[in-house]
Amino acid sequence: MSDRVREILSWYGSDNPGTRANLARLLTHGTLGGTGRLVILPVDQGFEHGPARSFAPNPPGYHPHYHFELAIDAGCNAYAAPLGFIEAGAAEFAGRIPLILKLNNHDLLHDDKDPLPSVTGSVRDALRLGCAAVGYTIYPGSAHCTTMYQQLREISEEAKAHGLAVVVWSYPRGSQLSKEGETGVDVVAYAAQIACQLGAHVVKVKLPTAHLEQAAAKKVYESLQVPIKTLAERVRHVVQSSFDGRRIVIFSGGPKSEDKVFFDEVRAIRDGGGFGSIIGRNSFQRPKAEALKFLQTVMGIYAGEIP
Amino acid sequence: MSDRVREILSWYGSDNPGTRANLARLLTHGTLGGTGRLVILPVDQGFEHGPARSFAPNPPGYHPHYHFELAIDAGCNAYAAPLGFIEAGAAEFAGRIPLILKLNNHDLLHDDKDPLPSVTGSVRDALRLGCAAVGYTIYPGSAHCTTMYQQLREISEEAKAHGLAVVVWSYPRGSQLSKEGETGVDVVAYAAQIACQLGAHVVKVKLPTAHLEQAAAKKVYESLQVPIKTLAERVRHVVQSSFDGRRIVIFSGGPKSEDKVFFDEVRAIRDGGGFGSIIGRNSFQRPKAEALKFLQTVMGIYAGEIP
Amino acid sequence: MSDRVREILSWYGSDNPGTRANLARLLTHGTLGGTGRLVILPVDQGFEHGPARSFAPNPPGYHPHYHFELAIDAGCNAYAAPLGFIEAGAAEFAGRIPLILKLNNHDLLHDDKDPLPSVTGSVRDALRLGCAAVGYTIYPGSAHCTTMYQQLREISEEAKAHGLAVVVWSYPRGSQLSKEGETGVDVVAYAAQIACQLGAHVVKVKLPTAHLEQAAAKKVYESLQVPIKTLAERVRHVVQSSFDGRRIVIFSGGPKSEDKVFFDEVRAIRDGGGFGSIIGRNSFQRPKAEALKFLQTVMGIYAGEIP
Amino acid sequence: MSDRVREILSWYGSDNPGTRANLARLLTHGTLGGTGRLVILPVDQGFEHGPARSFAPNPPGYHPHYHFELAIDAGCNAYAAPLGFIEAGAAEFAGRIPLILKLNNHDLLHDDKDPLPSVTGSVRDALRLGCAAVGYTIYPGSAHCTTMYQQLREISEEAKAHGLAVVVWSYPRGSQLSKEGETGVDVVAYAAQIACQLGAHVVKVKLPTAHLEQAAAKKVYESLQVPIKTLAERVRHVVQSSFDGRRIVIFSGGPKSEDKVFFDEVRAIRDGGGFGSIIGRNSFQRPKAEALKFLQTVMGIYAGEIP
Amino acid sequence: MSDRVREILSWYGSDNPGTRANLARLLTHGTLGGTGRLVILPVDQGFEHGPARSFAPNPPGYHPHYHFELAIDAGCNAYAAPLGFIEAGAAEFAGRIPLILKLNNHDLLHDDKDPLPSVTGSVRDALRLGCAAVGYTIYPGSAHCTTMYQQLREISEEAKAHGLAVVVWSYPRGSQLSKEGETGVDVVAYAAQIACQLGAHVVKVKLPTAHLEQAAAKKVYESLQVPIKTLAERVRHVVQSSFDGRRIVIFSGGPKSEDKVFFDEVRAIRDGGGFGSIIGRNSFQRPKAEALKFLQTVMGIYAGEIP
Repeated sequence: MSDRVREILSWYGSDNPGTRANLARLLTHGTLGGTGRLVILPVDQGFEHGPARSFAPNPPGYHPHYHFELAIDAGCNAYAAPLGFIEAGAAEFAGRIPLILKLNNHDLLHDDKDPLPSVTGSVRDALRLGCAAVGYTIYPGSAHCTTMYQQLREISEEAKAHGLAVVVWSYPRGSQLSKEGETGVDVVAYAAQIACQLGAHVVKVKLPTAHLEQAAAKKVYESLQVPIKTLAERVRHVVQSSFDGRRIVIFSGGPKSEDKVFFDEVRAIRDGGGFGSIIGRNSFQRPKAEALKFLQTVMGIYAGEIP
Repeated sequence: MSDRVREILSWYGSDNPGTRANLARLLTHGTLGGTGRLVILPVDQGFEHGPARSFAPNPPGYHPHYHFELAIDAGCNAYAAPLGFIEAGAAEFAGRIPLILKLNNHDLLHDDKDPLPSVTGSVRDALRLGCAAVGYTIYPGSAHCTTMYQQLREISEEAKAHGLAVVVWSYPRGSQLSKEGETGVDVVAYAAQIACQLGAHVVKVKLPTAHLEQAAAKKVYESLQVPIKTLAERVRHVVQSSFDGRRIVIFSGGPKSEDKVFFDEVRAIRDGGGFGSIIGRNSFQRPKAEALKFLQTVMGIYAGEIP
Repeated sequence: MSDRVREILSWYGSDNPGTRANLARLLTHGTLGGTGRLVILPVDQGFEHGPARSFAPNPPGYHPHYHFELAIDAGCNAYAAPLGFIEAGAAEFAGRIPLILKLNNHDLLHDDKDPLPSVTGSVRDALRLGCAAVGYTIYPGSAHCTTMYQQLREISEEAKAHGLAVVVWSYPRGSQLSKEGETGVDVVAYAAQIACQLGAHVVKVKLPTAHLEQAAAKKVYESLQVPIKTLAERVRHVVQSSFDGRRIVIFSGGPKSEDKVFFDEVRAIRDGGGFGSIIGRNSFQRPKAEALKFLQTVMGIYAGEIP
Repeated sequence: MSDRVREILSWYGSDNPGTRANLARLLTHGTLGGTGRLVILPVDQGFEHGPARSFAPNPPGYHPHYHFELAIDAGCNAYAAPLGFIEAGAAEFAGRIPLILKLNNHDLLHDDKDPLPSVTGSVRDALRLGCAAVGYTIYPGSAHCTTMYQQLREISEEAKAHGLAVVVWSYPRGSQLSKEGETGVDVVAYAAQIACQLGAHVVKVKLPTAHLEQAAAKKVYESLQVPIKTLAERVRHVVQSSFDGRRIVIFSGGPKSEDKVFFDEVRAIRDGGGFGSIIGRNSFQRPKAEALKFLQTVMGIYAGEIP
Repeated sequence: MSDRVREILSWYGSDNPGTRANLARLLTHGTLGGTGRLVILPVDQGFEHGPARSFAPNPPGYHPHYHFELAIDAGCNAYAAPLGFIEAGAAEFAGRIPLILKLNNHDLLHDDKDPLPSVTGSVRDALRLGCAAVGYTIYPGSAHCTTMYQQLREISEEAKAHGLAVVVWSYPRGSQLSKEGETGVDVVAYAAQIACQLGAHVVKVKLPTAHLEQAAAKKVYESLQVPIKTLAERVRHVVQSSFDGRRIVIFSGGPKSEDKVFFDEVRAIRDGGGFGSIIGRNSFQRPKAEALKFLQTVMGIYAGEIP
C-alpha cells in the first residue's frame, strides 16, 4: 500500500476498519490504484435522463454488462450505478471491480425546480450485492434539502456501522439559485462543505466557474482576494473547502464535450489538488475502443505521465 | 425446462433461487409455457374503473372465480389482481395457476392529475395467498413519483428476500405530461428503464406511439435516427431500453378494441421482441367462449403458429 | 386438478391458500401427479449416516446435482434434503421440482439413545431457496421429545404463516423403547397421531410390524381385535390413526433391500390406503438407469398400472 | 479473473453477489490468487493453546501485527484470527489482505472430552472490521454438537444475508470417538460432509489417516474397496465427500513438523484435488525469514512450479 | 496529551473515537494522569465477600460516598464498583472521577468450584450513570466459561458501539485448576491472552507466581527458558502475552498485606512493564489518612519518584 493511500486513509480515523478497508479498495483498484487519484465510471443517466438520451449514441450501452466491462477494461477505480444496473451484473462480475450502489435517483418525467430524488436502494442491498460503498445525491438549494440531508444521515449511519464507504453527489439546485449559480465557485465550495459536514467520505461536485452567486459570499471572496481566476485555483478552493483536503473530492465530467477541453479540465483538477473524476457520458457515449483510449489519456494525466 | 427459459432465468443472477423458481413458474405455466412468451390476465379494473364499467359488458365477470377460471381455461401464464379478488378465490384455485398480487391500486372516485395509488396488500399477503409474484404500479411523471418509487423499493426488497418475483406496471402519467405523451415512445421507453433500474423482474408498459414528448429526447431520436416508425420497431426500442432485453417486458392491451387491430399489435410485440401481453378488458369483457378463442389466437401468434 | 387432489386439499381447511397451493404442488407434480399418491426422493443420509455409507455404493451420488436430476428424471413428486444439498442446486434447478428443506438433522459421530437432532435451516432459508415445504424430524420416545416438539411448533407456525407446507418425519426412538418397539404397530400409529396433532400436513413413518410395545395399548389391540395381521392392515391402521386418513401419510423405504420385497411393501401401502413412499437409499444407491426403472415400477404400482 | 476461479464461483449459485464477491476476494488474493488454490494463515492458537505454547518459539508472534505482516508478505490468500487479534490490526492493515474473523473459540484452562467453544464475535463485528468471511469451529462427535450446529446455522444465515462467506473448521472430537478416530478417513470425510450440509462455503479439516473408526462405515469402505491407501487418495475421498468437489476444502497443517514431511503432505493435498492449506504453527513458530521461505515452497508446490 | 498516552491510544485503532476518548479519560485523570500508568480503586468486595468482611475493618467504608471520596482524594485514575455503589454516588460525584461499572458479580452465599457470576448491570446503566467503562469478570477454567465469554461478547459489542471502554477482570478458577494453579504464571498469562482475544481494552489479572500448572505449557517454558524467575520477569511475560504490551494490563492487589511487600510488588509491576494496579482492600480497609499515604507511595513508585 502506497504512502499516499495510507495518508488518505489516516484522515478517516473515526471510521471503523471496515469502512477504511472499503475506501482502500476504491483507492488501490485499477490503473490509478495507489496514486491517490480516482477515475470512477458512473452510469445513472438511464434513470436520470432516459435511455435513448443516454445510450442511443453508443447502443451497446443499453446492455448492463457493457458498463461493468468498460469500467474493468479501462482500469477505473470503481463503477457506480442504481439498483437495477448493479443487480443486472453483480453476480457475473463479482469480485472484479469495487461497486458503488447509488441509493437515490431522480428522473425527468416529473421535474421540479426544487427536486427531491427517490430512495431506490438500501444499505442491505449494497451488502448483498457486494458493494464497497453507497452513493447518494443531495441538491443543496432545493426546498427539499432537509428531506435529503436526513435520508442521507440515516443511510450514512447504517452504512458506516456495516463497514461501507459513503459517496455523496452534491449538486446545488433549487428555486433560489440561478442556473449560473449552480456551478458558481462559492456555491460549489459550499456544497462540498455541506457534504463533508454531513459525513461523506467521498464528495463529488461539478467543476466550478468563476461566477459568484451569493452576495454575502461575494464580498468575502473579493475583499480577501481568494484566488479563483483559473480552474485549477477554483478546484484548489473547493478542495480546501472540503476540510482542507482531508476528504476525497472528485469532479463530474458533465455532458459529452470536446476531448481537448475535457483533458484540460482534468489537468486543472490534477493541478488544483483534486482527487479525480467521475466520468459517465464522456466515457460510455462513444465506441468502446475510443472510450478506452480516452480514459487512458485521462488516467495518464492524473498519473502525471501525460503532462 | 426449455433453453429459452433457462436463458431468461440466467439474467437474474443477483436473485435467490426462490425468486428464480417463481419466475420459472410464470415462464413454464400455461399454453405458452417454455416459449419465453407470456400472456397474463389482469383484473384490477373493478378497483381502478368501477364495477359496472368493468363487468357489466360481461356480467359473469362480477364473480371473482370467473377470472381464475378464465385464466386457467385459456392457458394464461398467470392471473393478477388486487387483494380482494385474490382472497376470494385463492383457496378454491390453490395450485392451479401462478398468481400475482397487485399491491397498490387507485380508484376514480378521487382522481388527480398526479395520481398516487394506495398500497392495498403486503408481501406477507402474497405469501399467505400462495402468489408467485407481487405487482406494483408506478406512475412516472406524477408529482408523487418519489412516494411510489420508495414504496416499491421497500416492497421489492422484502419480496426478493422471501423468494417472490416483482412485476412493475410502469404507466407515465402526471401534470407535466401531455395525454399524447403518456404513450409517446420516448416516454414509454423511459418508463420501462425506470422500472428496470428500480429492480423489477418483469415490466409492463403500454404500447408506444411514434409521438416524442420530451424536447431533449426528441433531438436524440431524430439526429441518431433511432428507428421508431413501425410498432414493431418501437417495441424493439422499449425492449432495448429494458436492459437490452435482459428484463421481461410485456405490454398491456388497453381498452377493448377491434380484434384484428389487437392481433396486429400482438404480431408487432412478437416481431419486436416483446415478451408478451397482459390482457384484461379485451379478455373478460366478452363472453367466455369468445374470450377463450380470442386468447387462443393471441397465444397462437406468440407461439408462431399463427403468422 | 383431479378430484382426488381437490379432496385431499379439502382436508386442510384451516390452512391459508399459500400452504394449500404448496400441498397442491406436491400432489400434482411428477408421474403420480394428480393420483393422490406421492413418491418423494429424500437425501439426508450424507448427514445422517455419513458420505461413504450413503454414496460409495453409487458414487455419482456424491454430486448434489445427481439427486435433483434423479428426482426430476424419475418423475418424483418432490426432492427433500438438508440445507447444503438444497443450496448446492436450488439455483440450477429452480422451478424444476418441488423442494422440501429438511430443517433438522442428526449425525452418528455423536449418537445417543435419546437423540436430539440439530436445527440446521430456517423457514427463511426455505423461502429464499424456493421450497414448497419444510421437513422436520421428531423422535417420539426420546427424552428430548419436548425440545423437538417445541422447535417444530415454532417452525410450523412460521412456515404456515408464510404459505409453506410442513412435512414431519416421525420416528419413535429413545431409552424407553425396545429396538423392536420402534416399529411396533402401536408405536408407529402413536407416532403418526402425534405428528398430526402437532399440525403436520404430511407425515412420514416407518412401515409397522405386528409387534405391540406398550402393555396398555396391547390390551386394547387384543381385546378389540384391531386388525393388524397383514402389512396392508397395519398401514390402514396407521392411516386411520392419522385423523382417519385426513392427513397425508407416507412411508419410508428403509435400507436398500430386495426389489421384490420392496415392491410387495409398496403394494401393501397402496392397498392399505397409504399415500406413498419416500425412498432414499433404494433409489440413489444403485446406478441411475436401474434407479429410474425401479422408481417407475414403484410408481406403476401406486398408479395401479402394475398390480 | 481466471477460468478456474469462475468455475469455483459457479458452484455457489444460491449465494448473493456479495458472498460470491468475498469468495472471489479469497480466491484472487496473494501468490496463489487465480489458481483455485489457497494458503491461509490462521492464528487462534493464543486462545486455543495459550500464549507461551504458541508464541514463545518465535516471540515476535506475541505482537498482533506480526501475523498480518507475515500473511501479507508471504502472499497468503487470507488471515484468520479471533476478535482480539483482528481488532488489534484491522485498522492498520485495512484493505491489505482478506480477513476471516473466527467467531468461536475454545481454551484449555477448562477442557472437556465433549468440548463446546464459546461464541466470541458476531457477524456485525466482521462487517465493522472489514472481514471477507466469518469462521466457525464445529466438533462433530461432541455431546454439544447440537448447540454448535445451531449457533453456526444462525451465524451462517446472517453472514450470507450480509454478503459474507462462511468458513467452517470441522474437527471431529468427543467422548464417543477414539483419539485415532478423530483423524480416521471415514470420520474426516463425514465431518467434511456435515460442514457442507450445514451450508459452509469453505471447509477446513485435518489430514485423514487410513484408520477407519465406525464399524458400519468400515464395512462399506472395505467391501466397495474405496481407495484410501495413499494420502492423496484419502484427500481425494474427502474432497469427493464435500459435494463431489463443489465446495472448497482445505487442510490444516497441524503441529509444527519436519518440513520434508510437510511438503509431501502438501503434494498429496495438491494431487488429491484438495484446494489448499491453512497453516498456523508451521508458519508463525519459526523466524519470519524462514517462514516466508517455507510458505513460498508450499505455494510453489500448489502452483505446480515445484513438483 | 502526553506522548505515552497518545502511543497507548494508537493501539486501539479499531475502536471508535468515543471509546478512545474514554480510554483517554482513564489515562489522563488523577495523579498518574499522562504517565501511562494507572491506579484504580475497585470496591466490589461488599458483594463478593460480604459487608462485614469488607468494611468492618474501617467502618466509614460502609458508606458509598467514602469510596468516591477516597478515589478522588487519592488521585486514582478511576473508581470501579457494582451497580448499587455507583448509583449511590454517581449524582453527587458526577464529573469528578472516571467510573467503571462492574457488570457482573458473584457472592459467597452460594459458592461453586466452577463459579458463574451474575450479570448485575447493563451498558445502558453505565451510560445513564456517566461511566467511562464497563467492567466484567471472567473465570477461565470454570465449567461455565462459555457462558461468561458469551455474555462478555455481547456486552463488549454493545459497549464499544456506544463509545465505552471494556475492562476485563480475568481470574482463572475452576474444578480443573489447582489452587496454586490459579496464579501460576502460565495460567495467568493464558488468562490475560484470553481477555485480550475477547476484545478487552484493559485487562486485570492477579500477580503470577513461578508455578507452572499445565504440563504441555511447562515443557515450553522450560525448554525455551522463558524467563519467569523474578516477579518483574513474570509481569513482563504477562504483558507480552497481552498482545506484546499493546493492551493495558493492570494487576490486582489481593488481600490486605504488609505494605513493604506490597510496594515491592508494585516495583515489580513497574519494572516488568505493567500498567498499574487496581487496589481495593489494601486501600479502603485502613483509615482514610493512612490509605491516602499508602496510595501516594504506590503512585510515587509508578511515577518513578520513589525508586
